[in-house]
Amino acid sequence: MEKHKVEVCYSPALFPFYENHDAIVVVTDILRASSAIVTAFMNGVEKIIPVGSLEEAKAYKEKGYMVAAERDGIVRDFADFGNSPYNFTPERVQGNQIVYSTTNGTNAIHLASSGYQVLIGAYLNITALARHIRDEGRDLLVLCAGWKNKFNLEDTLFAGALARKVLHDDRYSTICDATLGAMDLYDAASSDMMAYVEKVAQRHRLKKNKLDDVIGYCHEFDMTDLIPVLEDGALVRL
Amino acid sequence: MEKHKVEVCYSPALFPFYENHDAIVVVTDILRASSAIVTAFMNGVEKIIPVGSLEEAKAYKEKGYMVAAERDGIVRDFADFGNSPYNFTPERVQGNQIVYSTTNGTNAIHLASSGYQVLIGAYLNITALARHIRDEGRDLLVLCAGWKNKFNLEDTLFAGALARKVLHDDRYSTICDATLGAMDLYDAASSDMMAYVEKVAQRHRLKKNKLDDVIGYCHEFDMTDLIPVLEDGALVRL
Repeated sequence: MEKHKVEVCYSPALFPFYENHDAIVVVTDILRASSAIVTAFMNGVEKIIPVGSLEEAKAYKEKGYMVAAERDGIVRDFADFGNSPYNFTPERVQGNQIVYSTTNGTNAIHLASSGYQVLIGAYLNITALARHIRDEGRDLLVLCAGWKNKFNLEDTLFAGALARKVLHDDRYSTICDATLGAMDLYDAASSDMMAYVEKVAQRHRLKKNKLDDVIGYCHEFDMTDLIPVLEDGALVRL
Repeated sequence: MEKHKVEVCYSPALFPFYENHDAIVVVTDILRASSAIVTAFMNGVEKIIPVGSLEEAKAYKEKGYMVAAERDGIVRDFADFGNSPYNFTPERVQGNQIVYSTTNGTNAIHLASSGYQVLIGAYLNITALARHIRDEGRDLLVLCAGWKNKFNLEDTLFAGALARKVLHDDRYSTICDATLGAMDLYDAASSDMMAYVEKVAQRHRLKKNKLDDVIGYCHEFDMTDLIPVLEDGALVRL
């Protein structure tokens, strides 16, 4: 029997070369969009509408929506709040719909929508994700949001961690070099993830803007079983 | 004093995001184009004309040029020979001009030409390359040819090895996640490179076509000090 494939795409700009209409596509942007989205669902958000451009986000704001929007880590002035998971408090999000636009993550979500199913992945829900993918018995494609189309380490490490979990099921296999590389990097990093993440470029960017308080939280495993899924252009609970 | 940058680009499709007109761009396609090109210079080739398309290669053949051309590891019928370093024997190449077209490598060379200088890199000339780059005191950008715009491990490992060598010079530094990842993968692989390379996708492709005899050779360090450089659209000795 042919096995289900596991592949990892390191950048939205490489997505056309990995595109797979039969795959579950897991979009990840560990620092910080995908961690923030999972947190919002943990805190009871009803729906998140990911929008690519700030203009679109602003138009939603004018229509009365609650809007989270940032570029390069900085909250935009028209927005209610930014991209930190700590912004998505129960007081703000419980039962609400939120429009969300970030530097890398939200465009990646739209791109991924050619897949069979689009899920949002973070360490916070990694085991639930792996279980769902294996239960579905479908190919897995992890799409790393990266940084302005460049490779980044923190998304790659997550992709490696998720690939390892899914590949424990022997109905799955991979011949994808990017997946093999991500798993090896995860193995190199996992014994002391925080020490490893010290060196990633995004940590420096966040630190410069005093936004690095969330890095430990964004690397916590299994805080929830909730999985955000893209349906009709919006993220809802699976 | 600002330090010289080291960056690694994992795919020709990502090149626009890494492009740096001040950098020395080292193009690598370890299995097998860049190893074959370096070998050709070791064996006395005068000039290699890299062409992207097979049509162009065929047109050169009709004009009487010696042509090496392959796609997906298979020699094209109009060509004199293919992509194995073992094809570029002194008998064939000494004092000659050769037109060369491959699946990934030759397009990457053309793309790189926006850099300050374009060099061809392989393990065969890695130490000479690192020395030249440090002597020039310029930024380094390693462009991995990849596989049809996907990430590949063998080019990444070479990029990591070269980056490590250049970064030994403390006038150089990197904040590029792709460079950090490549160095960590190289460190994981370097104690037993052949065992590591066993798993890369390109080895499976070459093995399928019985072309994997060159893998050991393509991972030999420092067989030469020769460095191929792109000048007026053709590769010559630096």
